[in-house]
Amino acid sequence: MTTVGILGGGQLARMLALSGAPLGLRFLVMDTAADACAGQFVPMVVGDYRDEAALSEFASRIDVATFDFENVPAESAQWLSNRVPVFPNPRALATAQDRLAEKTLFRELGIPVPPFATIDTREQLDAAIAAIGLPCILKTRRLGYDGKGQFRVRTAADADAAWQALGAQAGKVGLILEGFVAFERELSVVAVRGRDGEFRAWPLTENWHVDGVLSVSLAPARVDAALAETALAHARKLADALDYVGVFALELFCRDGELLANELAPRVHNSGHWTIEGAETSQFENHLRAVLGLPLGDTRMLGHACMLNWIGEMPDASAVLSEPGGHWHDYGKSPRAGRKVGHATLRADSTQGLAASLQRIGAGLGRESQVEPVVQALAR
Amino acid sequence: MTTVGILGGGQLARMLALSGAPLGLRFLVMDTAADACAGQFVPMVVGDYRDEAALSEFASRIDVATFDFENVPAESAQWLSNRVPVFPNPRALATAQDRLAEKTLFRELGIPVPPFATIDTREQLDAAIAAIGLPCILKTRRLGYDGKGQFRVRTAADADAAWQALGAQAGKVGLILEGFVAFERELSVVAVRGRDGEFRAWPLTENWHVDGVLSVSLAPARVDAALAETALAHARKLADALDYVGVFALELFCRDGELLANELAPRVHNSGHWTIEGAETSQFENHLRAVLGLPLGDTRMLGHACMLNWIGEMPDASAVLSEPGGHWHDYGKSPRAGRKVGHATLRADSTQGLAASLQRIGAGLGRESQVEPVVQALAR
Repeated sequence: MTTVGILGGGQLARMLALSGAPLGLRFLVMDTAADACAGQFVPMVVGDYRDEAALSEFASRIDVATFDFENVPAESAQWLSNRVPVFPNPRALATAQDRLAEKTLFRELGIPVPPFATIDTREQLDAAIAAIGLPCILKTRRLGYDGKGQFRVRTAADADAAWQALGAQAGKVGLILEGFVAFERELSVVAVRGRDGEFRAWPLTENWHVDGVLSVSLAPARVDAALAETALAHARKLADALDYVGVFALELFCRDGELLANELAPRVHNSGHWTIEGAETSQFENHLRAVLGLPLGDTRMLGHACMLNWIGEMPDASAVLSEPGGHWHDYGKSPRAGRKVGHATLRADSTQGLAASLQRIGAGLGRESQVEPVVQALAR
Repeated sequence: MTTVGILGGGQLARMLALSGAPLGLRFLVMDTAADACAGQFVPMVVGDYRDEAALSEFASRIDVATFDFENVPAESAQWLSNRVPVFPNPRALATAQDRLAEKTLFRELGIPVPPFATIDTREQLDAAIAAIGLPCILKTRRLGYDGKGQFRVRTAADADAAWQALGAQAGKVGLILEGFVAFERELSVVAVRGRDGEFRAWPLTENWHVDGVLSVSLAPARVDAALAETALAHARKLADALDYVGVFALELFCRDGELLANELAPRVHNSGHWTIEGAETSQFENHLRAVLGLPLGDTRMLGHACMLNWIGEMPDASAVLSEPGGHWHDYGKSPRAGRKVGHATLRADSTQGLAASLQRIGAGLGRESQVEPVVQALAR
């Protein structure tokens, strides 16, 4: 009997456990919150990721560790990896945690990125704004342990306000200035790499965000084959360079037919939730297969799929459950503004069928604006 | 938050819970065994189904009750139904528990059944053997609470031995003599009926048993449309007559192109396990949707599917996991002779693809004899 330990006990851990149960696996999650939603089905260790006693208890009860949350302190991941196998490896995690390291790696691997510069002082900020051009975004290099910091710089006059908001972080987590990309589309590659280096990717996904939070995903993305192939090649190069094991997402901007890498998420990803019903093997099962050294599952799609995120609170389920291809995912969380509390996946054999289903759901839930961009994309 | 109580904590309860978690449901199982495998993911009440204190605790913590095990004492189901809604209703359960009541209902509904007679005395046994003909099978009317009793009567001289083996049960659980059907094929209808009477069935499944235990299922069964329609009509009539709510299986024999009803299983059924990956909505999710009064999900198939049961102990997973359409189900049980410990489902777009996959797995696991009947059926 193998027990998989998961750092972080949110919906990703929950879906990992639900998809891993049929493999005969047991799970243990560690989270700072006693009411983390994976705990409804999986035993938990409640504690701070930097608390060695809690980490030690966690390590003693598991055979292998992985993550539902990428901002586990790198030292904690390292400490754990001296006791049990940890996938993805702590170096991959550390790279993905640090916007500068991540973007530097992208550039080294020949993966195009928006212009960026590291910012240590107020003077560097002015120089970088001049070099990168407006608009641009000042960001902390790491989310840190408590939250995130971003400041949009629209005019040169915004530099003062940006520095006031984030300057204090320069000496702590570090700052990075990134050029703003007026992208036409956001895409993601969700892919998996095995312990033996085998690489598989699900079809490219197109994503729409609202207020910085994923709202809808469509797969396969309506892009030409060459673009999809380039995206997959970027993802593969990145996974090989990091000796990555498990599922990850590479978020990309598409502008004038060119791809620019935005971010690496070193874990199963919201834009891959559609794989539960929409692919032969889900991202959750394949992450576990990779972490355990089992053969990777087929990533082919079953038709067309669209995922709708539910943010803040769950809508009424019946509009989705009444659709032939409608599937419901309630994470068992209490409602809270801005919180990801669930999602729905719609699967259909044709793009027309998918669009019709989306329109019925949009109308039924009064969420026309959420489904509209996907309906438009499907009509392209 | 709705909590579904399940009487019986085996693999059916486990798969119900895993499929119901995305609906935002919580579960509580009751079982006599503290190590029942559903307990690995779901809280449990351990106790005898006739223990009123344990039943009372169970009832106090749930919103609705259902079954993973049909031989829960009818009185316990009735007692529970005075406290919480119970689906399927206790009358349907009681009918399915009693071979005589079940077969009498089949006959009343015009569903053909093999000849049968109730047996109260040794004299009735002789008369019934003469009337029904040889071979035939003497069975207890109920499995009772401890196990089952069946005795095959091949010649008139076997009557003595049959009576010696089971005669003592005549005054307890009752006996029934059934004509033996030299069937060519065994089929099952797995269907669901909602609280509002809506009826849906998955495509007909063909089953092969070894030593009385299900070995392999194939869906859709390779039968002509008229036969499949008749089978579905029988199932629907039965469900309506019992005001049945939830998933059930109607097992049928096929002889000379005619269907004979064998048994009603008032629960999700082993021959419907393929629906997890092989249908738009699984039998487990649809059972929960029915029990909760939610819209029923689509029962259409996604390609062709075959389920292989693992009895006694789990084989090595890699042969199945290496197949593109291979899916693994380990129930987390300890090995024991004759015990259902897991299953695999193979899904393919074509019958040829399914046959090829089955042959590779048969060869890989040295289980050629298990897959052979399905490979032959697919070649028909």
